[in-house]
Amino acid sequence: MSELELNPRYIEAVTRVVNESPYFALLSMEIKELKWGTSLLEVQLGEKHLQPFGFVHGGAIASVMDAAAFWAAFPQVEKGIGLTTVEIKVNYLAPAQKGKLVALGRCIKMGKTLALGETIIKNGEGGLIAHGTATMMVVPDLRIPGYEDLPPSR
Amino acid sequence: MSELELNPRYIEAVTRVVNESPYFALLSMEIKELKWGTSLLEVQLGEKHLQPFGFVHGGAIASVMDAAAFWAAFPQVEKGIGLTTVEIKVNYLAPAQKGKLVALGRCIKMGKTLALGETIIKNGEGGLIAHGTATMMVVPDLRIPGYEDLPPSR
Amino acid sequence: MSELELNPRYIEAVTRVVNESPYFALLSMEIKELKWGTSLLEVQLGEKHLQPFGFVHGGAIASVMDAAAFWAAFPQVEKGIGLTTVEIKVNYLAPAQKGKLVALGRCIKMGKTLALGETIIKNGEGGLIAHGTATMMVVPDLRIPGYEDLPPSR
Amino acid sequence: MSELELNPRYIEAVTRVVNESPYFALLSMEIKELKWGTSLLEVQLGEKHLQPFGFVHGGAIASVMDAAAFWAAFPQVEKGIGLTTVEIKVNYLAPAQKGKLVALGRCIKMGKTLALGETIIKNGEGGLIAHGTATMMVVPDLRIPGYEDLPPSR
Repeated sequence: MSELELNPRYIEAVTRVVNESPYFALLSMEIKELKWGTSLLEVQLGEKHLQPFGFVHGGAIASVMDAAAFWAAFPQVEKGIGLTTVEIKVNYLAPAQKGKLVALGRCIKMGKTLALGETIIKNGEGGLIAHGTATMMVVPDLRIPGYEDLPPSR
Repeated sequence: MSELELNPRYIEAVTRVVNESPYFALLSMEIKELKWGTSLLEVQLGEKHLQPFGFVHGGAIASVMDAAAFWAAFPQVEKGIGLTTVEIKVNYLAPAQKGKLVALGRCIKMGKTLALGETIIKNGEGGLIAHGTATMMVVPDLRIPGYEDLPPSR
Repeated sequence: MSELELNPRYIEAVTRVVNESPYFALLSMEIKELKWGTSLLEVQLGEKHLQPFGFVHGGAIASVMDAAAFWAAFPQVEKGIGLTTVEIKVNYLAPAQKGKLVALGRCIKMGKTLALGETIIKNGEGGLIAHGTATMMVVPDLRIPGYEDLPPSR
Repeated sequence: MSELELNPRYIEAVTRVVNESPYFALLSMEIKELKWGTSLLEVQLGEKHLQPFGFVHGGAIASVMDAAAFWAAFPQVEKGIGLTTVEIKVNYLAPAQKGKLVALGRCIKMGKTLALGETIIKNGEGGLIAHGTATMMVVPDLRIPGYEDLPPSR
């Protein structure tokens, strides 16, 4: 599929539904921006993200890596069709402790049955924190609750 | 290092410090058992773990995968020396929605500078949910706060 | 699918076709044993496998990792249906220089659309050389040339 | 380390030693270009790269992925210090059959003990074939035979 412009009503609806979903709220994780094939997510870091040694747990970093890759790719599947993550890989490049995580997701390939996304995670000062990839599989009948009929692109 | 028996006081201290740490509490994740080279962790699933489609977020599964591999390996480094996760890989094999996640961690190799751990995650009924690996690096001067002088093995 | 016994004529045919295929011959790589859900492959190491520093190139190790995981899983798809590798992950645990590589493949999960395999690679003395996983996708109409009608199990 | 210009004599020496090494010759794999933090490698595909189904074996693709990431990063370690690959991840995006593989390697991060590289592999027509990453570890006393004293940068 060639590059398209996303439907602003779709972006608004997806952003609201996703940001209000339980796990996003739990981790203070938010979609900040969605474009065709890219995403920008942020995590506001707090005490709750820390492991016993006082650094952000790798699982929190993996969560935003996965989410940024997924939401960069998701708008490229047809209405009514969904994506599910098959596997993820994360490289931890520097520890994080406070401030925020900024995750830039990118869809490397959207195929008929599989997609590959990539995420670069930085801290609030622009320092590289992590890099990762996610393989996703196209699945039928996975819709965003409440927005089943909204076309992703215009 | 050949197989050793872990010090019961060490197990008790590590389990308490880790289970009370912020991210473990946030995710309702707990170490249930630690032995030489293996770990058993559980996550009590609730509404808070769900993504917008109603399934447990892949990031929550990645969190317990990482933690189980890490704590299976950690007791094998010398007192006063620590481990940090370099990269993780998770394969999602079936969706999870409620009940619990049971994660069995295993240390595949503990080397002088790097270690490799593996985790198998099942649901409460024994169904396979995910498989993953974690590469860890030995780092100096990473101690468990409050238990700096406790020897891991006896 | 529950565990089945492989058809000896199928094992013989697959082993011959695969071992005579160009890349297997190029790398001196051979299937030695196939059972339901497991494989045993070997690489006879020689000068040709070495990188500039005098060790076996990681790509040769990745090749046998991929092949062992693939052939452990392949007999579990229906006749006339095939598998293709979607992604691989390899951890290098110790260098290899000569002798042989022994790769033990295992099918962790065979699903309707995806499969996961794992390979442990040792040297001729039983020392651990590498560990890896491969995600495979079920694809229609991929047959072993010359043996299209041979049922894998009996 | 900030970006530097590579020493032309170093590039020439490394390219010759690597391209003449046994595994590179076996796979018809060649370094075509090395710059600070990037590499360009090619594989001339032939019958020998094929698996039993008539496509290029995933192990050949993994080999050039690993090599391109490695040689993009290698010139950034100090003279007399070396790198060794710790783990690789490859996503296969489309099959290849003939012509050539063009691999573009890039060093994402060079740290004090670990480095991360990424490779994008295309076919001769520019079609995306694979994407991968490699984690490397800095090791002392790994020198390019015959060129131990050549400084990488000028």
